[in-house]
Amino acid sequence: VHRTIDWDGEAIVAIDQTRLPAEERLLRIEDVATLAEAIRSLRIRGAPALGVAGALGIALAVRNAQREGTDLRAAADKAAAILAATRPTAVNLRWGIDQARGALDAGPDAVVNSAISLLEADVRTNRQLAERGADWLDAMRARAQHPLRILTHCNTGALACVEIGTALGIIQVAHSRGAVGEVLATETRPLLQGSRLTAWELQRLGIPFRLVGDGAAPSLIDRGRVDVVIVGADRIAANRDVANKIGTYPLALAAHAADVPFLVAAPESTFDSATPSGDDIPIEERAEAEVLSFGSARVAPEGAHALNPAFDVTPSELVTAIITEARVIERG
Amino acid sequence: VHRTIDWDGEAIVAIDQTRLPAEERLLRIEDVATLAEAIRSLRIRGAPALGVAGALGIALAVRNAQREGTDLRAAADKAAAILAATRPTAVNLRWGIDQARGALDAGPDAVVNSAISLLEADVRTNRQLAERGADWLDAMRARAQHPLRILTHCNTGALACVEIGTALGIIQVAHSRGAVGEVLATETRPLLQGSRLTAWELQRLGIPFRLVGDGAAPSLIDRGRVDVVIVGADRIAANRDVANKIGTYPLALAAHAADVPFLVAAPESTFDSATPSGDDIPIEERAEAEVLSFGSARVAPEGAHALNPAFDVTPSELVTAIITEARVIERG
Repeated sequence: VHRTIDWDGEAIVAIDQTRLPAEERLLRIEDVATLAEAIRSLRIRGAPALGVAGALGIALAVRNAQREGTDLRAAADKAAAILAATRPTAVNLRWGIDQARGALDAGPDAVVNSAISLLEADVRTNRQLAERGADWLDAMRARAQHPLRILTHCNTGALACVEIGTALGIIQVAHSRGAVGEVLATETRPLLQGSRLTAWELQRLGIPFRLVGDGAAPSLIDRGRVDVVIVGADRIAANRDVANKIGTYPLALAAHAADVPFLVAAPESTFDSATPSGDDIPIEERAEAEVLSFGSARVAPEGAHALNPAFDVTPSELVTAIITEARVIERG
Repeated sequence: VHRTIDWDGEAIVAIDQTRLPAEERLLRIEDVATLAEAIRSLRIRGAPALGVAGALGIALAVRNAQREGTDLRAAADKAAAILAATRPTAVNLRWGIDQARGALDAGPDAVVNSAISLLEADVRTNRQLAERGADWLDAMRARAQHPLRILTHCNTGALACVEIGTALGIIQVAHSRGAVGEVLATETRPLLQGSRLTAWELQRLGIPFRLVGDGAAPSLIDRGRVDVVIVGADRIAANRDVANKIGTYPLALAAHAADVPFLVAAPESTFDSATPSGDDIPIEERAEAEVLSFGSARVAPEGAHALNPAFDVTPSELVTAIITEARVIERG
């Protein structure tokens, strides 16, 4: 199994996630413009993977400038601007960019090494996060006295990271401990990361699962079919409001109404202390065509328009706990 | 413009809704088995249209038995059993069946006339319902001092009825009075009645609209982008819990959290006094393939499974008002 994103010494190598589950195709990305396109079109996606991609993008820009004999700092600045603009809501992307740029005073090799260590840190971080989250579920499972039925949204697995996921990483470790009865995975319109990516990962991991429509999940929570909801995050504001894939907020509302725990799994790098609350998080609006079509097939009549926010904000009151590699932050 | 469903003197004529918006094809249905297939596969759909279809189905069975010289009551009983089993949640379907069967003592012509008068009553009923709902919105619009931004779910237009819709009928009349700024219509997975049918109707009516993903609607309500939510109903229990298309409940949760009115538009025939509460409403589960595929294109990996409830239940506490042809029932 390939890492979702990696550095081969000269270029970025990444799985093209738009081709899954039909085809497992590796991209070799040699310049920043190609990387920016890959991020915009979600060939590379997932908050932690975007952090790594941001750092590797700066490494790529600096290596290319070094080879061409142009100014390293100018190349890094330009790459940072291009990459940061691709996904305005994802804070990890900027964080990764800033980490790699921070090494620039120490020279180009330091930039590359910084990006590589961020890549390796993602693997360690998510392993810790997954173990910590599985511990939380163990306690819950002991109370429930049956394997847990876990609902998750979008894709937060290895495909969203480097080698092991966040929310899906927790589910993976919990499954290895025998704590998982079944996973319900939302299909996650419009781009169907649940049906395409999470289903593909769950199948490979041998974890029993069923897909559900995004609109069906809240009533399944209400009807007692779900023991716990676990999602990822794209940005967590200072007041702990959570921006995540569109469709997260209704799951949190339903979990709260049914008194079902709602967990957010995210590395510490997802916290954005500069953003006071969810109201201050910019919400990326994506192309209308994602909603108007299904795959390549037009669904809506010609001339119809759509509104396509990519993220929503779940207020901190609805979050039972945030699980990071370092701590579990329970609702106060 | 054709009626959604009609009687041509010998057979049922209906628009094949699975073909829209690409193609406007009329079906001519001459026997109960063909009608049952058309209902099961959603060629004919929508709570009020199902009531009409149930009544016309009994008329068809009785006319065919008359022609063949077989027992009328046996034919009606058999048709009733076949048709009622097609959509277990929809109470209007059984109501329509029962209305037509109730005329059997007066002979076959009475059965046909009963079905036809039910068809005509649907048009009158929904016209009254739409005017009453538009009056409610007028008062709201006066307070808001701007044209209303209305969110709706699934399809509740002429295509769900005979000639004018329920929730979408209200929107249509409100639009003719200048009270509608924009409609946000959910795409309504898995079968995309919003993107295919509601969009097609709104476009024909010249009402400005945009489509949104089912998972996006709750956060748009939360962010102040919606003044009022209006949906239909498939069954209303004695305690006024509302069964409606899957994905309705999260809209009600979000509207309640944001203090946005949540209206249910349904003819009186949708009330089922024999069902005490939402917990007692059977929830139809439809084929997994509706979630796993889109049209003929497989989305999820081979071997993946899905859970596909067709309806959810919104508790009466979350419903601001139920609007029927006869009254407005405000939350107590």
